[in-house]
Amino acid sequence: MSDAEPGGLLAANDAFYRAFTTGDISAMQALWAGNGPAFCCHPGWPPIVDREQVLSSWQDILGQGGASDIVFMLLQSAEWGETGIVCGIELLGSAQFSCTNVFVRAGRDWRMVHHHAGPLAPAARLNLSGTADPGRSVRH
Amino acid sequence: MSDAEPGGLLAANDAFYRAFTTGDISAMQALWAGNGPAFCCHPGWPPIVDREQVLSSWQDILGQGGASDIVFMLLQSAEWGETGIVCGIELLGSAQFSCTNVFVRAGRDWRMVHHHAGPLAPAARLNLSGTADPGRSVRH
Repeated sequence: MSDAEPGGLLAANDAFYRAFTTGDISAMQALWAGNGPAFCCHPGWPPIVDREQVLSSWQDILGQGGASDIVFMLLQSAEWGETGIVCGIELLGSAQFSCTNVFVRAGRDWRMVHHHAGPLAPAARLNLSGTADPGRSVRH
Repeated sequence: MSDAEPGGLLAANDAFYRAFTTGDISAMQALWAGNGPAFCCHPGWPPIVDREQVLSSWQDILGQGGASDIVFMLLQSAEWGETGIVCGIELLGSAQFSCTNVFVRAGRDWRMVHHHAGPLAPAARLNLSGTADPGRSVRH
C-alpha cells in the first residue's frame, strides 16, 4: 500500500487493491460507484461495460479468496475536478500488467468507475531490479 | 469514424484515430493536452508518463505514415464534469486491443491526457461476425 492521504485518491486505490488481495467482495462492491457507467477489463477477459456484470466478475475472481500475490506499483496519479486517474503496473509473479484505475468523487469519498489491466509484453516489462520510482501525483 | 456531435467527446476520439490512421503527427500533437500529466501505454511498449516522451512515441509510430488499418469499435463513452472517457476495441487484422482514451475539457475542445491499449487474449476477443453493438454514451 502507498503512503496515501486518508480520503484521498491513492487511499481509494489502496482500498481497491486491499479488496482485491484479501478477496473482500463486500469492500469491492462498496468501492464501485453505485450508479452510472462502469467499465472493467481483466486480463484474458473481454471488456465489461455493465455495473452488475462488473461486480459479478469480481465475485468470480475473489470467490476463491483473493489474489494475495498481486502488488501494485504506482506510476502516476492525477485529478481533474471530480475525476481521478491512477496508473501503474500490477506485478504478479514474473508477469506485469499495465493498469488504469479511474475514480469519481462521491461526497467525501472516491468511487471506482473504471479498471483496465492489460498484459505488458515481455520486452516491455519494467526492470525492477533497481530502486522503484515512487510515482508522481498531480492535482489540477 | 463514429456519428459524433461536432465538438463533442466522440469527435475528439475520432480526431485521435484520424491522426493515428493517417500519420498526422501535427494533429496528434495538437490533440494532446499542452500541459499537465499525460499517460500513454502502447501495446508492446512500457507505459510512458511524460508528455514529451508520449509525443515522441507518436512521432516514432506515425513517422512511417500511420496505421491505416486500425479500426476503433466503441464500447462506452462517459463524461464526468470536465473529464471524458472513451472505451473500446482497436481492431488490427485478427488482433484486438482493449482501449481506454481519456480527454479533459480545454475551453470548447477536448484534449487527450491518457491512452491505454492492451492486447486481448485470443479467448477474450469479441466475436464480430454478428451485428456490432454501437456502444453506449453517458453524460453526467
